[in-house]
Amino acid sequence: MRLVVVGGVAGGMSAAARFRRLNEDAEIIVLERGGEVSFANCGLPYFVGGEITDESALLVQTPASLEASLGLDVRVNTRALALDPETRTLTIEDADGRSELTYDELILSPGASALRPPIPGVDSPRVQTLRTVPDALSLNLIAATAKRAVVLGAGFIGLEAAEALNARGLETSIVELAPHVLPPLEDEMANLVRDELLRLGIAVHDGVSADAIEQGEAHDTVVLSDGTRFETDVIVLSVGVRPDTSVWEAAGVECERGAIIVDEVGRTNVDRVWAAGDATVSVDRITGARRPVALAGPANRAGRLVADAISGKLQHRLPGLTGTAIVRVGDLTAALTGANRRALADAGITHYTVHLHPLNHAGYFPGASQIHLMVHFGTDGKLLGAQAVGNDGVDKRIDVLAVALKAGMTVHDLIDLDLAYSPPYGSAKDPVNIAGMMAANVLDGTLNLWYAKDVEDVMRESLVLDVRSAGEVRTGHLPGALNIPHTQLRDRIDEVREAAGGRGVAVYCQSGMRSYLAHRQLSQAGLRSANLSGGMLTLRATLGPRADELLLTK
Amino acid sequence: MRLVVVGGVAGGMSAAARFRRLNEDAEIIVLERGGEVSFANCGLPYFVGGEITDESALLVQTPASLEASLGLDVRVNTRALALDPETRTLTIEDADGRSELTYDELILSPGASALRPPIPGVDSPRVQTLRTVPDALSLNLIAATAKRAVVLGAGFIGLEAAEALNARGLETSIVELAPHVLPPLEDEMANLVRDELLRLGIAVHDGVSADAIEQGEAHDTVVLSDGTRFETDVIVLSVGVRPDTSVWEAAGVECERGAIIVDEVGRTNVDRVWAAGDATVSVDRITGARRPVALAGPANRAGRLVADAISGKLQHRLPGLTGTAIVRVGDLTAALTGANRRALADAGITHYTVHLHPLNHAGYFPGASQIHLMVHFGTDGKLLGAQAVGNDGVDKRIDVLAVALKAGMTVHDLIDLDLAYSPPYGSAKDPVNIAGMMAANVLDGTLNLWYAKDVEDVMRESLVLDVRSAGEVRTGHLPGALNIPHTQLRDRIDEVREAAGGRGVAVYCQSGMRSYLAHRQLSQAGLRSANLSGGMLTLRATLGPRADELLLTK
Repeated sequence: MRLVVVGGVAGGMSAAARFRRLNEDAEIIVLERGGEVSFANCGLPYFVGGEITDESALLVQTPASLEASLGLDVRVNTRALALDPETRTLTIEDADGRSELTYDELILSPGASALRPPIPGVDSPRVQTLRTVPDALSLNLIAATAKRAVVLGAGFIGLEAAEALNARGLETSIVELAPHVLPPLEDEMANLVRDELLRLGIAVHDGVSADAIEQGEAHDTVVLSDGTRFETDVIVLSVGVRPDTSVWEAAGVECERGAIIVDEVGRTNVDRVWAAGDATVSVDRITGARRPVALAGPANRAGRLVADAISGKLQHRLPGLTGTAIVRVGDLTAALTGANRRALADAGITHYTVHLHPLNHAGYFPGASQIHLMVHFGTDGKLLGAQAVGNDGVDKRIDVLAVALKAGMTVHDLIDLDLAYSPPYGSAKDPVNIAGMMAANVLDGTLNLWYAKDVEDVMRESLVLDVRSAGEVRTGHLPGALNIPHTQLRDRIDEVREAAGGRGVAVYCQSGMRSYLAHRQLSQAGLRSANLSGGMLTLRATLGPRADELLLTK
Repeated sequence: MRLVVVGGVAGGMSAAARFRRLNEDAEIIVLERGGEVSFANCGLPYFVGGEITDESALLVQTPASLEASLGLDVRVNTRALALDPETRTLTIEDADGRSELTYDELILSPGASALRPPIPGVDSPRVQTLRTVPDALSLNLIAATAKRAVVLGAGFIGLEAAEALNARGLETSIVELAPHVLPPLEDEMANLVRDELLRLGIAVHDGVSADAIEQGEAHDTVVLSDGTRFETDVIVLSVGVRPDTSVWEAAGVECERGAIIVDEVGRTNVDRVWAAGDATVSVDRITGARRPVALAGPANRAGRLVADAISGKLQHRLPGLTGTAIVRVGDLTAALTGANRRALADAGITHYTVHLHPLNHAGYFPGASQIHLMVHFGTDGKLLGAQAVGNDGVDKRIDVLAVALKAGMTVHDLIDLDLAYSPPYGSAKDPVNIAGMMAANVLDGTLNLWYAKDVEDVMRESLVLDVRSAGEVRTGHLPGALNIPHTQLRDRIDEVREAAGGRGVAVYCQSGMRSYLAHRQLSQAGLRSANLSGGMLTLRATLGPRADELLLTK
């Protein structure tokens, strides 16, 4: 029995290794068009940045180690050119030319290639991508002498590349077509990342496109849609990827916008042809949206599952993806799981959001730092998505929420999660528990929120009440806000009633906690009241640079 | 309407604060027998150890701050002496003497007191507990001049106390009646903690009791059941707690072995009397066992829920507890969630266990360290419990598993958890995913395990096969083991068949991964084979000091 696997990185190599463990007698051939298999593609930016110094660390396995350990026949620098499903034959090409290869079962894990947008001049030799070990070696060499770099695309890999080049001493700019860096993040999270990029000394140009790359002798010039021009020694293209499926689509493998359609065990429409990884369509668990997802974890697991399915060992099915992702940017970690506002709107799912700024661990224990956390949930209480930015403990909370999402938990379930608490690790009420409590309060009307994006409308229509101390107010407050510290509110509630004159009262404080106490008092005193979700911290993060225009400091 | 809350720390204060937010007009009186409310009890060892330097950091709230912020009438140094449920009257005692206090609703959150075992001499003035701020202040003072300390009880707080005193320069010994430190942990985890205690310079005496405390003028002498005697300047008693419920039981509040019985919203058997926290009976979610649980998180949440119930705002019920706990010991973190072997045995639940030693994040990224992880699961695949010890990333994995437990997930569900991956935070296959894969392999017979505790039997009955390299074998191997490196096994399988002579083959390597590959080859070659769960690392950790007696180094 011969299994042929096309693609020797995440999904393909997981499939081949698992198939060997289940089928000692099978012949297993892995075809990889590149020169390396099973390499550490997620590590490439850190090699460029100098954190990973040993090139060999990037090569997790080699064809020789895979032969020795698993008896795999791994053929690098080998491309698949055509597939004839009738005769179960692949046409392949390697250094020796073209040949044919038959199979009993075929697994397609071709991955995705870097998109090259149709920008004039994008064929410049100074334009690089960062997808393979040779890409990383080349960029590493260039970084040793180059002075300036432009990264096109501020997604996860783009940010990692920009930080790496900046760490190597290059004057680095990053350009993003979307309104903000890390487009999957909400504004109020992305602006925190933007601030960190600026702190690192990386220039951020968001909401603009690169219209041209002018190729010069000494350097190229990148021209942006807003007229900005930068001279640069290297341009890293990181504007997304496209599944590498033309050969397979031509052979009759059914695709959807270029990605291979598979069933819940990885089967394509073609007999004995299976697929896994970045080139396949995934189903979003929350919204039902269908799209290819370029993530290493899901690719590895899908590869393993396909091997199980072919071996008749199937124990479970591919679940939908919750789309959890994380990136380190300077001292910050930004992470998300589940759906964001746009995905929820596209899917027509009504939702609420809570914002909070808890500490990563007990405040009285040294080294506590703030986590900026937001959680989306449905009108039925079901968790829909979460995002967080902070220094420490962000990965843990997003992973906890990712499991809760996968389990279909409600915000009430979050309240009662038994998370590991001792002062160095968390708080008796963990940030995730608190998010659940806040959300439950929203659902039953105990907490009525207003959101920072609506600040102009709210200022026009409501009495704005700032319940911070006078000292905090001077650091920046909304124009026209009445200031009554929350500890004085019980005695001064008539002042508020008078100032409101029948209008609603929009309360805020620094993080949303003291104003929640005030909001409860106002509501129970018969005033219509709402509390700013996430307080001044979220307001500033939502408005970004516009915050300083709006806020008064006396 | 008057609410009286007895106990002003975790559960009681959460109840009082929540009740105020829901009932602005209620009179809320909190009685606390100690001098402080809402203090950071989990922070006390770190204050003694010098990591928390500011005493005021331990006082999260004061009666004054609670009056200002929440309008609570907090009365410290006030004891409840009796309850008359008929007339809804408490007899209380404070500095002014006895008086009576009526209530409309009463919440009992009296907590638990340190157990004082009936050891001769336990009344020595050198015997201390570490439950309150005055305890911590006193121990902090003593530590400034004392030279030697003995901690009786190596549970979570006992270890924290021992590490604190050791950090202050005291020659510190810890004594534990159970066979190993941290009794809720399995042997193979606890021995790793023991090694870390020894590395810190703390003397560990486990499996022995303290039989007497001989009070001397210059010092006391602790006498152990094995005859060991130490002179010491201070003795910290940390052998457990007992619910403080005698007053309530006398008044007719139904208790079970001293702990108050509540329903799933915190109601006792007595009309208008509610309870929350360490003094109540909790139900274990996995085993159904009933016992009081002294954990801050569950106490806080139970207090909040009781306030909701009294307010008619109830959104959910008290779930059973998964019993998640964590402790920092030196550079290590040890944590657990769910049931351990003993609890499963007591409940008659058949289970399997997998051991693994994955890295906390991608191995090619600097600073990776090993997590020693074990997972218990049922014959139906249901997750039952997990424990982990390591340097970094332990808290995250145990929290992830705690959520999975709460959700009733199976090991198959663990495989497909979408956890946040990028090289600084994890691996494409997270330790939790891998645990799920291993467990699924056990369930369907792909992986047949043997366990370190059975090593003597296995050596007697099976051919032992060591598939590590010759160099690794020399660092310590089982007597009589045949050594064939796993990469040579395909060519040398007949050697194994011959040596086995009809016996089963017990394979092992360092961590269990290479021997799993070997096990698959052996099984498919028709040999009865089993793989050592967790490999040599788990074997050494299980045997502890006995490992060096058993293993040969040439």
